[in-house]
Amino acid sequence: MISTDFPTNAQATLTIWRDHILNNYAYCDNLSSGAECSAVVKANAYGMDIDQIAPALFNDTGCKTFFVANLAEAGKLRQAVPEAIIYVLGGILPSHIPYYIAHNIRPVLNDLAQIRAWADCQDSNRPTCAIHFDTGINRLGLTNAERETFFNDSALQKKLNVALVMSHLACADTPDHPMNQQQLNDFKTIRKYFPDTPASLANSGGILLGPEYHFDMVRPGLILYGGNPTNRNLPEPIKSVFQIDGTILQLRKLEAGQAVGYDATWTAEKPCHIATINIGYADGYPQLFGNCGWAYLKNTKVPIVGRVSMDMITLDVTDINPELVKVGGMVELIGGHITLEMASEVSTLSQYEILTGVGDRYQRIYR
Amino acid sequence: MISTDFPTNAQATLTIWRDHILNNYAYCDNLSSGAECSAVVKANAYGMDIDQIAPALFNDTGCKTFFVANLAEAGKLRQAVPEAIIYVLGGILPSHIPYYIAHNIRPVLNDLAQIRAWADCQDSNRPTCAIHFDTGINRLGLTNAERETFFNDSALQKKLNVALVMSHLACADTPDHPMNQQQLNDFKTIRKYFPDTPASLANSGGILLGPEYHFDMVRPGLILYGGNPTNRNLPEPIKSVFQIDGTILQLRKLEAGQAVGYDATWTAEKPCHIATINIGYADGYPQLFGNCGWAYLKNTKVPIVGRVSMDMITLDVTDINPELVKVGGMVELIGGHITLEMASEVSTLSQYEILTGVGDRYQRIYR
Repeated sequence: MISTDFPTNAQATLTIWRDHILNNYAYCDNLSSGAECSAVVKANAYGMDIDQIAPALFNDTGCKTFFVANLAEAGKLRQAVPEAIIYVLGGILPSHIPYYIAHNIRPVLNDLAQIRAWADCQDSNRPTCAIHFDTGINRLGLTNAERETFFNDSALQKKLNVALVMSHLACADTPDHPMNQQQLNDFKTIRKYFPDTPASLANSGGILLGPEYHFDMVRPGLILYGGNPTNRNLPEPIKSVFQIDGTILQLRKLEAGQAVGYDATWTAEKPCHIATINIGYADGYPQLFGNCGWAYLKNTKVPIVGRVSMDMITLDVTDINPELVKVGGMVELIGGHITLEMASEVSTLSQYEILTGVGDRYQRIYR
Repeated sequence: MISTDFPTNAQATLTIWRDHILNNYAYCDNLSSGAECSAVVKANAYGMDIDQIAPALFNDTGCKTFFVANLAEAGKLRQAVPEAIIYVLGGILPSHIPYYIAHNIRPVLNDLAQIRAWADCQDSNRPTCAIHFDTGINRLGLTNAERETFFNDSALQKKLNVALVMSHLACADTPDHPMNQQQLNDFKTIRKYFPDTPASLANSGGILLGPEYHFDMVRPGLILYGGNPTNRNLPEPIKSVFQIDGTILQLRKLEAGQAVGYDATWTAEKPCHIATINIGYADGYPQLFGNCGWAYLKNTKVPIVGRVSMDMITLDVTDINPELVKVGGMVELIGGHITLEMASEVSTLSQYEILTGVGDRYQRIYR
């Protein structure tokens, strides 16, 4: 391969600290010490690369149980961590059942049709399963009507080997939302029907709602990857797990009145210096950062001026010590100084979307 | 590899029609019949995969010249199309020069320092180069001051072998913007200094501004991939080149008053039916489509209700013929019925950003 011979700064870089993810896992594990702490690694470990992250969690922490969104992700994870317990949140299509059995993947059964299809499967290698009862988010999981049918069908229940009973919170990121307590109460009712089966309700936000929400297993996602799911400060800071760094491609002097970028949305009010950086929205650096985001040059904050282009952004470096601003020098975007919370606030995008949107044009460096 | 054994519907699908890209190339080539038509394939061919798209353009059209953003992309393209003419728009760092020579990649030189570094390189295999004169976008390219210096330095000029003189339009997507004419006039002035060197100004939007903007080479990007860079109707429609299709994971009945999705942003006003689909913002389907986007079930438009989740969206299918709505059935998102223009209008995101944001969790199908 020619391209691997190229220097690191032939493109922008994305540095990912696996040990910071392990640190954040330990934080969740401690917060929910009475419960098993699993890891949500769907969406390619929230963009951080499931092949890098899942084995680190499995080998270097006590994490044994992982959640992914679909069968294709489960297949990738099974390759990366042959001994992991893997649940697929999206449920099963009947035609997929043989793959779940062949690769020892546990389905999260989301409706009665899925439950019946799984119950009817007589393969002796059939894995255990989870059952998802909806308690108000109304995306996946048994409805109230289905729940009643299932509770009253002991023959059907006996044909399953249920390893986990679960639900999902709709408003956990808003601690004061009344739905949290409603869903908690509803889940407690459900659980009474399965006194001997492990139960799980809490995602990242749910973990922070307190021990009542932890049950037997918690399912952190965002918080593992350095996001803060609540608008409150955390008891101790979780660690940022990635950092995006660009290179200064060019420096230019502008006269007052000259415009920068597409559609000339920013105009210099006085003579100024502009640095052009090799990162744009094709790298998942959203256009919503145009004229409002900022970057860091060493420890100095620098505003983005003009639109975010596909492959470039432009910074106003007029007031920066010229010694810090050199062509070929590095500029820090999201990561160290600029947390996901800050990036979310300035862009109006969710931390989740910024994180999973991180593109694949970067040179990835794992530490 | 286990995962390749999985059925196509183990995840959502992204279908890409290479021949539609070739069709759109032919459209640009015809519109600019006096000029060479190159292809902009930066950002992994705008997310469509440079390894698939660039060879098709090279082998099946007259396209010989390609533009990428950085050296890493050029390396990938050189592997895919060994005989292509490749220009790197981002310019050179001095340490990169040996790679340009070794792989016969042409730099776009953006400032005097780059020009001097390239001029000083005495390697007999040094490729030709392009020089980018800024005419108002103020990201990359020689400033007016640098331009004067360069024009007056015939010794420096003689040390180069310039194959292309270029500039880039800031406002071509807004045909009536006065900057278009200003940049055109300025570029005509520049070109007088290089009467024998091919000149290029027009991106997709510039091509549509008319023959005056075409010079010797045009550089279509967005329009190759099915976007319309102008707010005007095109003389004949370009073709959509991709389509995103999801699978119905689950159907559920809601009572009046029940909410859907995170933060309960949508509430059923009457009893209704909801279909949950296996595509979310981690697939590059932006959260800005929440409660305003729509999908197609066969030929019927269906609204998205509630937030876009990381791995799911929810559709209100209450009024749809139940025969069309089955678990495991396919739902069309962006592509066929919903053009990039429509998706841009409803989400407020640019066509460019929606296109390059298309994620890599899809099963990709090339036709």
